[in-house]
Amino acid sequence: MSILLEFSMFPTDKGESVSVYVSKIIKMIDESGVAYQLTPMGTIVETNTMDEALEIIKKSYLVLEKDCSRIYSSLKFDIRQGKTNRLKAKIASVESKIGKVSK
Amino acid sequence: MSILLEFSMFPTDKGESVSVYVSKIIKMIDESGVAYQLTPMGTIVETNTMDEALEIIKKSYLVLEKDCSRIYSSLKFDIRQGKTNRLKAKIASVESKIGKVSK
Amino acid sequence: MSILLEFSMFPTDKGESVSVYVSKIIKMIDESGVAYQLTPMGTIVETNTMDEALEIIKKSYLVLEKDCSRIYSSLKFDIRQGKTNRLKAKIASVESKIGKVSK
Amino acid sequence: MSILLEFSMFPTDKGESVSVYVSKIIKMIDESGVAYQLTPMGTIVETNTMDEALEIIKKSYLVLEKDCSRIYSSLKFDIRQGKTNRLKAKIASVESKIGKVSK
Repeated sequence: MSILLEFSMFPTDKGESVSVYVSKIIKMIDESGVAYQLTPMGTIVETNTMDEALEIIKKSYLVLEKDCSRIYSSLKFDIRQGKTNRLKAKIASVESKIGKVSK
Repeated sequence: MSILLEFSMFPTDKGESVSVYVSKIIKMIDESGVAYQLTPMGTIVETNTMDEALEIIKKSYLVLEKDCSRIYSSLKFDIRQGKTNRLKAKIASVESKIGKVSK
Repeated sequence: MSILLEFSMFPTDKGESVSVYVSKIIKMIDESGVAYQLTPMGTIVETNTMDEALEIIKKSYLVLEKDCSRIYSSLKFDIRQGKTNRLKAKIASVESKIGKVSK
Repeated sequence: MSILLEFSMFPTDKGESVSVYVSKIIKMIDESGVAYQLTPMGTIVETNTMDEALEIIKKSYLVLEKDCSRIYSSLKFDIRQGKTNRLKAKIASVESKIGKVSK
Protein backbone atom coordinates (compact mmCIF):
# COMPACT_ATOMS: atom_id res chain seq x y z
CA MET A 1 0.00 0.00 0.00
CA SER A 2 1.32 3.42 -0.95
CA ILE A 3 -0.44 6.56 0.24
CA LEU A 4 0.87 9.71 -1.41
CA LEU A 5 -0.34 12.96 0.15
CA GLU A 6 0.55 16.28 -1.43
CA PHE A 7 -0.41 19.31 0.63
CA SER A 8 0.22 22.91 1.52
CA MET A 9 -1.04 24.59 4.68
CA PHE A 10 -0.57 28.23 5.63
CA PRO A 11 -2.09 31.09 7.61
CA THR A 12 -3.98 33.77 5.68
CA ASP A 13 -3.93 36.34 8.48
CA LYS A 14 -0.15 36.89 8.53
CA GLY A 15 0.45 38.92 5.38
CA GLU A 16 2.16 38.14 2.11
CA SER A 17 5.13 36.12 3.36
CA VAL A 18 4.39 32.94 5.28
CA SER A 19 7.66 31.01 4.96
CA VAL A 20 8.29 31.26 8.72
CA TYR A 21 5.11 29.30 9.36
CA VAL A 22 5.59 26.86 6.48
CA SER A 23 9.13 26.13 7.72
CA LYS A 24 7.77 25.07 11.11
CA ILE A 25 5.59 22.48 9.40
CA ILE A 26 8.47 21.18 7.25
CA LYS A 27 10.64 20.90 10.35
CA MET A 28 7.96 18.83 12.09
CA ILE A 29 7.65 16.55 9.03
CA ASP A 30 11.41 16.16 8.78
CA GLU A 31 11.67 15.21 12.45
CA SER A 32 8.74 12.77 12.19
CA GLY A 33 10.79 10.36 10.11
CA VAL A 34 8.18 10.01 7.36
CA ALA A 35 9.39 9.82 3.74
CA TYR A 36 8.76 13.18 2.09
CA GLN A 37 9.71 15.52 -0.72
CA LEU A 38 9.52 19.30 -0.53
CA THR A 39 8.34 21.06 -3.70
CA PRO A 40 7.90 24.75 -4.58
CA MET A 41 4.14 24.31 -4.06
CA GLY A 42 3.89 22.00 -1.08
CA THR A 43 5.11 18.84 0.54
CA ILE A 44 4.58 15.26 -0.61
CA VAL A 45 4.64 12.55 2.05
CA GLU A 46 4.38 8.82 1.47
CA THR A 47 2.98 6.52 4.12
CA ASN A 48 1.82 2.91 4.37
CA THR A 49 -1.40 3.66 6.22
CA MET A 50 -4.13 6.30 6.14
CA ASP A 51 -3.68 6.87 9.88
CA GLU A 52 -0.06 7.97 9.38
CA ALA A 53 -1.04 10.38 6.61
CA LEU A 54 -3.87 11.90 8.64
CA GLU A 55 -1.51 12.26 11.61
CA ILE A 56 0.78 14.44 9.47
CA ILE A 57 -2.17 16.68 8.58
CA LYS A 58 -3.18 16.93 12.23
CA LYS A 59 0.32 17.76 13.42
CA SER A 60 0.71 20.38 10.69
CA TYR A 61 -2.48 22.02 11.89
CA LEU A 62 -1.30 21.96 15.50
CA VAL A 63 1.94 23.71 14.49
CA LEU A 64 -0.09 26.67 13.20
CA GLU A 65 -3.10 26.61 15.49
CA LYS A 66 -1.66 28.53 18.41
CA ASP A 67 -0.51 31.53 16.36
CA CYS A 68 -2.99 31.78 13.50
CA SER A 69 -6.65 32.75 13.44
CA ARG A 70 -7.28 31.62 9.87
CA ILE A 71 -5.61 28.67 8.14
CA TYR A 72 -6.01 27.41 4.58
CA SER A 73 -4.94 24.06 3.25
CA SER A 74 -5.09 22.34 -0.13
CA LEU A 75 -4.44 18.60 -0.30
CA LYS A 76 -4.61 15.62 -2.60
CA PHE A 77 -4.27 11.90 -2.07
CA ASP A 78 -3.21 9.24 -4.55
CA ILE A 79 -3.65 5.87 -2.86
CA ARG A 80 -2.66 2.65 -4.54
CA GLN A 81 -2.69 -0.92 -3.33
CA GLY A 82 0.18 -3.28 -4.06
CA LYS A 83 2.72 -0.50 -4.64
CA THR A 84 5.51 1.02 -2.58
CA ASN A 85 8.20 3.69 -2.89
CA ARG A 86 6.19 5.79 -5.33
CA LEU A 87 7.92 9.05 -4.33
CA LYS A 88 10.62 7.82 -6.73
CA ALA A 89 8.77 5.28 -8.88
CA LYS A 90 6.14 7.59 -10.34
CA ILE A 91 8.69 9.99 -11.83
CA ALA A 92 10.77 7.06 -13.09
CA SER A 93 7.70 5.68 -14.87
CA VAL A 94 7.26 8.93 -16.80
CA GLU A 95 10.98 9.20 -17.48
CA SER A 96 10.99 5.73 -19.01
CA LYS A 97 8.30 6.87 -21.43
CA ILE A 98 9.58 10.30 -22.49
CA GLY A 99 13.31 10.04 -21.94
CA LYS A 100 13.96 12.77 -19.38
CA VAL A 101 12.19 15.06 -16.96
CA SER A 102 12.36 18.59 -15.59
CA LYS A 103 15.10 21.11 -16.27
CA MET B 1 -13.87 27.37 15.82
CA SER B 2 -15.20 26.46 12.40
CA ILE B 3 -13.46 23.88 10.26
CA LEU B 4 -14.77 23.74 6.71
CA LEU B 5 -13.55 20.77 4.68
CA GLU B 6 -14.44 20.47 1.01
CA PHE B 7 -13.48 17.19 -0.60
CA SER B 8 -14.11 14.62 -3.27
CA MET B 9 -12.85 11.05 -3.16
CA PHE B 10 -13.33 8.42 -5.83
CA PRO B 11 -11.80 5.27 -7.34
CA THR B 12 -9.91 5.62 -10.62
CA ASP B 13 -9.96 1.91 -11.45
CA LYS B 14 -13.72 1.58 -11.90
CA GLY B 15 -14.33 3.32 -15.24
CA GLU B 16 -16.05 6.53 -16.19
CA SER B 17 -19.02 6.46 -13.81
CA VAL B 18 -18.28 6.37 -10.08
CA SER B 19 -21.54 7.61 -8.58
CA VAL B 20 -22.19 4.23 -6.94
CA TYR B 21 -18.99 4.66 -4.91
CA VAL B 22 -19.48 8.37 -4.22
CA SER B 23 -23.01 7.65 -2.99
CA LYS B 24 -21.66 5.23 -0.37
CA ILE B 25 -19.48 8.02 1.02
CA ILE B 26 -22.35 10.51 1.08
CA LYS B 27 -24.52 7.97 2.86
CA MET B 28 -21.86 7.50 5.52
CA ILE B 29 -21.54 11.27 5.99
CA ASP B 30 -25.28 11.68 6.20
CA GLU B 31 -25.55 8.98 8.85
CA SER B 32 -22.62 10.41 10.84
CA GLY B 33 -24.66 13.42 11.91
CA VAL B 34 -22.05 16.00 10.83
CA ALA B 35 -23.27 19.21 9.18
CA TYR B 36 -22.64 18.97 5.45
CA GLN B 37 -23.60 20.24 2.03
CA LEU B 38 -23.40 18.19 -1.15
CA THR B 39 -22.22 20.07 -4.26
CA PRO B 40 -21.79 19.00 -7.90
CA MET B 41 -18.03 18.78 -7.26
CA GLY B 42 -17.77 17.33 -3.78
CA THR B 43 -19.00 17.50 -0.24
CA ILE B 44 -18.47 20.28 2.30
CA VAL B 45 -18.52 19.33 5.97
CA GLU B 46 -18.27 21.68 8.93
CA THR B 47 -16.86 20.52 12.25
CA ASN B 48 -15.69 22.10 15.49
CA THR B 49 -12.48 20.13 15.76
CA MET B 50 -9.76 18.89 13.44
CA ASP B 51 -10.21 15.36 14.79
CA GLU B 52 -13.81 15.25 13.60
CA ALA B 53 -12.85 16.45 10.12
CA LEU B 54 -10.02 13.92 9.81
CA GLU B 55 -12.38 11.17 10.98
CA ILE B 56 -14.67 11.95 8.03
CA ILE B 57 -11.71 11.60 5.64
CA LYS B 58 -10.71 8.31 7.22
CA LYS B 59 -14.21 6.86 7.11
CA SER B 60 -14.59 7.93 3.47
CA TYR B 61 -11.42 6.08 2.66
CA LEU B 62 -12.59 2.97 4.53
CA VAL B 63 -15.82 2.98 2.49
CA LEU B 64 -13.80 2.63 -0.72
CA GLU B 65 -10.78 0.65 0.48
CA LYS B 66 -12.24 -2.85 0.26
CA ASP B 67 -13.38 -2.54 -3.37
CA CYS B 68 -10.89 -0.18 -5.00
CA SER B 69 -7.24 -0.62 -5.86
CA ARG B 70 -6.61 3.05 -6.67
CA ILE B 71 -8.27 6.02 -4.97
CA TYR B 72 -7.88 9.73 -5.65
CA SER B 73 -8.95 12.57 -3.41
CA SER B 74 -8.80 16.34 -3.62
CA LEU B 75 -9.45 18.35 -0.44
CA LYS B 76 -9.28 21.84 0.99
CA PHE B 77 -9.63 23.22 4.48
CA ASP B 78 -10.69 26.70 5.54
CA ILE B 79 -10.23 26.91 9.32
CA ARG B 80 -11.23 29.97 11.26
CA GLN B 81 -11.19 30.67 14.95
CA GLY B 82 -14.07 32.49 16.65
CA LYS B 83 -16.60 31.63 13.96
CA THR B 84 -19.40 29.09 13.67
CA ASN B 85 -22.08 28.01 11.21
CA ARG B 86 -20.09 29.07 8.16
CA LEU B 87 -21.82 26.60 5.83
CA LYS B 88 -24.50 29.29 5.71
CA ALA B 89 -22.67 32.42 6.85
CA LYS B 90 -20.03 32.55 4.10
CA ILE B 91 -22.58 32.64 1.29
CA ALA B 92 -24.68 35.19 3.21
CA SER B 93 -21.60 37.41 3.51
CA VAL B 94 -21.15 37.47 -0.26
CA GLU B 95 -24.88 37.92 -0.82
CA SER B 96 -24.89 40.98 1.40
CA LYS B 97 -22.20 42.52 -0.77
CA ILE B 98 -23.48 41.76 -4.26
CA GLY B 99 -27.23 41.40 -3.77
CA LYS B 100 -27.87 37.83 -4.87
CA VAL B 101 -26.11 34.59 -5.68
CA SER B 102 -26.30 31.67 -8.05
CA LYS B 103 -28.99 31.02 -10.59
CA MET C 1 -19.61 18.25 -23.39
CA SER C 2 -19.82 19.42 -19.79
CA ILE C 3 -16.90 21.17 -18.15
CA LEU C 4 -17.34 21.61 -14.41
CA LEU C 5 -14.80 23.91 -12.78
CA GLU C 6 -14.80 24.35 -9.00
CA PHE C 7 -12.46 27.05 -7.75
CA SER C 8 -11.63 29.57 -5.09
CA MET C 9 -9.26 32.51 -5.58
CA PHE C 10 -8.25 35.04 -2.96
CA PRO C 11 -5.45 37.41 -1.91
CA THR C 12 -3.18 36.32 0.93
CA ASP C 13 -1.79 39.78 1.63
CA LYS C 14 -5.05 41.38 2.82
CA GLY C 15 -5.54 39.87 6.26
CA GLU C 16 -8.03 37.37 7.64
CA SER C 17 -11.20 38.56 5.91
CA VAL C 18 -11.24 38.51 2.13
CA SER C 19 -14.96 38.52 1.35
CA VAL C 20 -14.71 41.98 -0.26
CA TYR C 21 -12.33 40.54 -2.86
CA VAL C 22 -14.20 37.27 -3.30
CA SER C 23 -17.44 39.20 -3.84
CA LYS C 24 -15.89 41.09 -6.75
CA ILE C 25 -15.12 37.78 -8.47
CA ILE C 26 -18.63 36.42 -7.85
CA LYS C 27 -20.11 39.64 -9.25
CA MET C 28 -18.02 39.25 -12.41
CA ILE C 29 -19.12 35.62 -12.80
CA ASP C 30 -22.75 36.53 -12.23
CA GLU C 31 -22.60 39.25 -14.87
CA SER C 32 -20.78 36.97 -17.35
CA GLY C 33 -23.91 34.89 -17.87
CA VAL C 34 -22.20 31.55 -17.26
CA ALA C 35 -24.09 28.88 -15.29
CA TYR C 36 -22.69 28.76 -11.77
CA GLN C 37 -23.31 27.77 -8.17
CA LEU C 38 -21.79 29.50 -5.17
CA THR C 39 -20.74 27.22 -2.30
CA PRO C 40 -19.24 27.95 1.14
CA MET C 41 -15.84 26.89 -0.25
CA GLY C 42 -15.80 28.28 -3.77
CA THR C 43 -17.70 28.67 -6.98
CA ILE C 44 -18.67 25.98 -9.48
CA VAL C 45 -19.13 27.01 -13.09
CA GLU C 46 -20.31 24.82 -15.95
CA THR C 47 -19.27 25.56 -19.52
CA ASN C 48 -19.41 23.79 -22.88
CA THR C 49 -15.82 24.55 -23.86
CA MET C 50 -12.43 24.69 -22.16
CA ASP C 51 -11.89 28.20 -23.53
CA GLU C 52 -14.91 29.50 -21.64
CA ALA C 53 -13.76 27.91 -18.39
CA LEU C 54 -10.23 29.30 -18.74
CA GLU C 55 -11.68 32.74 -19.52
CA ILE C 56 -13.46 32.69 -16.13
CA ILE C 57 -10.15 31.91 -14.40
CA LYS C 58 -8.41 34.71 -16.28
CA LYS C 59 -11.11 37.27 -15.51
CA SER C 60 -11.10 36.27 -11.84
CA TYR C 61 -7.39 36.89 -11.73
CA LEU C 62 -7.77 40.27 -13.44
CA VAL C 63 -10.34 41.30 -10.80
CA LEU C 64 -7.71 40.82 -8.07
CA GLU C 65 -4.50 41.66 -9.92
CA LYS C 66 -4.58 45.44 -9.55
CA ASP C 67 -5.01 45.42 -5.76
CA CYS C 68 -3.22 42.30 -4.57
CA SER C 69 0.47 41.41 -4.47
CA ARG C 70 -0.06 37.72 -3.68
CA ILE C 71 -2.95 35.59 -4.91
CA TYR C 72 -3.74 31.94 -4.17
CA SER C 73 -6.14 29.73 -6.05
CA SER C 74 -7.27 26.12 -5.76
CA LEU C 75 -9.19 24.58 -8.65
CA LYS C 76 -10.52 21.30 -9.96
CA PHE C 77 -12.02 20.26 -13.27
CA ASP C 78 -14.40 17.39 -13.98
CA ILE C 79 -14.81 17.18 -17.76
CA ARG C 80 -17.15 14.72 -19.35
CA GLN C 81 -18.11 14.17 -22.96
CA GLY C 82 -21.71 13.51 -23.99
CA LYS C 83 -23.20 15.12 -20.86
CA THR C 84 -24.83 18.46 -20.11
CA ASN C 85 -26.44 20.27 -17.19
CA ARG C 86 -24.35 18.49 -14.58
CA LEU C 87 -24.62 21.33 -12.04
CA LYS C 88 -27.99 19.72 -11.27
CA ALA C 89 -27.61 16.19 -12.65
CA LYS C 90 -24.68 15.07 -10.48
CA ILE C 91 -26.50 15.75 -7.22
CA ALA C 92 -29.68 14.15 -8.60
CA SER C 93 -27.68 11.00 -9.42
CA VAL C 94 -26.53 10.68 -5.81
CA GLU C 95 -30.03 11.51 -4.50
CA SER C 96 -31.51 8.71 -6.59
CA LYS C 97 -29.14 6.27 -4.92
CA ILE C 98 -29.36 7.30 -1.28
CA GLY C 99 -32.76 8.95 -1.04
CA LYS C 100 -31.90 12.48 0.06
CA VAL C 101 -29.00 14.86 0.38
CA SER C 102 -27.70 17.60 2.62
CA LYS C 103 -29.43 19.07 5.63
CA MET D 1 5.72 38.56 -11.63
CA SER D 2 5.93 34.85 -10.85
CA ILE D 3 3.00 32.56 -11.55
CA LEU D 4 3.45 29.09 -10.08
CA LEU D 5 0.91 26.52 -11.25
CA GLU D 6 0.90 23.04 -9.77
CA PHE D 7 -1.44 20.61 -11.48
CA SER D 8 -2.27 17.05 -12.35
CA MET D 9 -4.64 16.02 -15.13
CA PHE D 10 -5.64 12.47 -16.02
CA PRO D 11 -8.43 10.39 -17.56
CA THR D 12 -10.71 8.46 -15.19
CA ASP D 13 -12.11 6.13 -17.86
CA LYS D 14 -8.84 4.30 -18.63
CA GLY D 15 -8.36 2.09 -15.60
CA GLU D 16 -5.87 2.12 -12.77
CA SER D 17 -2.69 3.04 -14.65
CA VAL D 18 -2.66 6.35 -16.50
CA SER D 19 1.06 7.01 -16.90
CA VAL D 20 0.81 6.70 -20.70
CA TYR D 21 -1.56 9.66 -20.74
CA VAL D 22 0.31 11.68 -18.13
CA SER D 23 3.54 11.18 -20.07
CA LYS D 24 2.00 12.77 -23.16
CA ILE D 25 1.22 15.90 -21.14
CA ILE D 26 4.74 16.03 -19.66
CA LYS D 27 6.21 15.66 -23.14
CA MET D 28 4.12 18.59 -24.38
CA ILE D 29 5.22 20.73 -21.42
CA ASP D 30 8.86 19.78 -21.94
CA GLU D 31 8.70 20.73 -25.61
CA SER D 32 6.89 24.01 -24.86
CA GLY D 33 10.03 25.50 -23.32
CA VAL D 34 8.31 26.63 -20.11
CA ALA D 35 10.19 26.25 -16.82
CA TYR D 36 8.80 23.25 -14.97
CA GLN D 37 9.42 20.63 -12.32
CA LEU D 38 7.89 17.16 -12.32
CA THR D 39 6.84 15.79 -8.92
CA PRO D 40 5.35 12.46 -7.84
CA MET D 41 1.94 14.18 -7.61
CA GLY D 42 1.91 16.55 -10.57
CA THR D 43 3.81 19.14 -12.50
CA ILE D 44 4.78 22.64 -11.40
CA VAL D 45 5.24 25.26 -14.11
CA GLU D 46 6.41 28.83 -13.63
CA THR D 47 5.37 31.56 -16.04
CA ASN D 48 5.50 35.34 -16.17
CA THR D 49 1.93 35.83 -17.32
CA MET D 50 -1.47 34.29 -16.60
CA ASP D 51 -2.01 33.73 -20.32
CA GLU D 52 1.03 31.43 -20.52
CA ALA D 53 -0.14 29.40 -17.53
CA LEU D 54 -3.67 29.02 -18.89
CA GLU D 55 -2.22 27.99 -22.26
CA ILE D 56 -0.45 25.08 -20.55
CA ILE D 57 -3.75 23.96 -19.01
CA LYS D 58 -5.50 24.20 -22.37
CA LYS D 59 -2.79 22.28 -24.20
CA SER D 60 -2.80 19.57 -21.51
CA TYR D 61 -6.52 19.19 -21.99
CA LEU D 62 -6.13 18.98 -25.77
CA VAL D 63 -3.57 16.17 -25.36
CA LEU D 64 -6.20 14.04 -23.58
CA GLU D 65 -9.40 15.23 -25.22
CA LYS D 66 -9.31 13.04 -28.32
CA ASP D 67 -8.87 9.75 -26.43
CA CYS D 68 -10.67 10.26 -23.12
CA SER D 69 -14.35 10.61 -22.30
CA ARG D 70 -13.83 11.76 -18.72
CA ILE D 71 -10.94 13.89 -17.47
CA TYR D 72 -10.16 15.08 -13.95
CA SER D 73 -7.75 17.81 -12.96
CA SER D 74 -6.63 19.34 -9.68
CA LEU D 75 -4.70 22.63 -9.79
CA LYS D 76 -3.36 25.39 -7.59
CA PHE D 77 -1.88 28.79 -8.33
CA ASP D 78 0.50 30.82 -6.20
CA ILE D 79 0.91 34.20 -7.89
CA ARG D 80 3.26 36.82 -6.55
CA GLN D 81 4.23 40.22 -7.88
CA GLY D 82 7.82 41.43 -7.82
CA LYS D 83 9.30 37.94 -7.65
CA THR D 84 10.93 35.62 -10.18
CA ASN D 85 12.53 32.18 -10.32
CA ARG D 86 10.47 30.80 -7.47
CA LEU D 87 10.74 27.19 -8.65
CA LYS D 88 14.10 27.32 -6.88
CA ALA D 89 13.71 30.26 -4.50
CA LYS D 90 10.79 28.95 -2.46
CA ILE D 91 12.60 25.78 -1.43
CA ALA D 92 15.78 27.76 -0.71
CA SER D 93 13.79 30.04 1.60
CA VAL D 94 12.64 27.08 3.69
CA GLU D 95 16.11 25.51 3.62
CA SER D 96 17.62 28.71 5.00
CA LYS D 97 15.23 28.50 7.96
CA ILE D 98 15.45 24.82 8.87
CA GLY D 99 18.86 23.81 7.59
CA LYS D 100 18.02 21.11 5.05
CA VAL D 101 15.12 19.66 3.12
CA SER D 102 13.80 16.34 1.89
CA LYS D 103 15.55 13.03 2.09
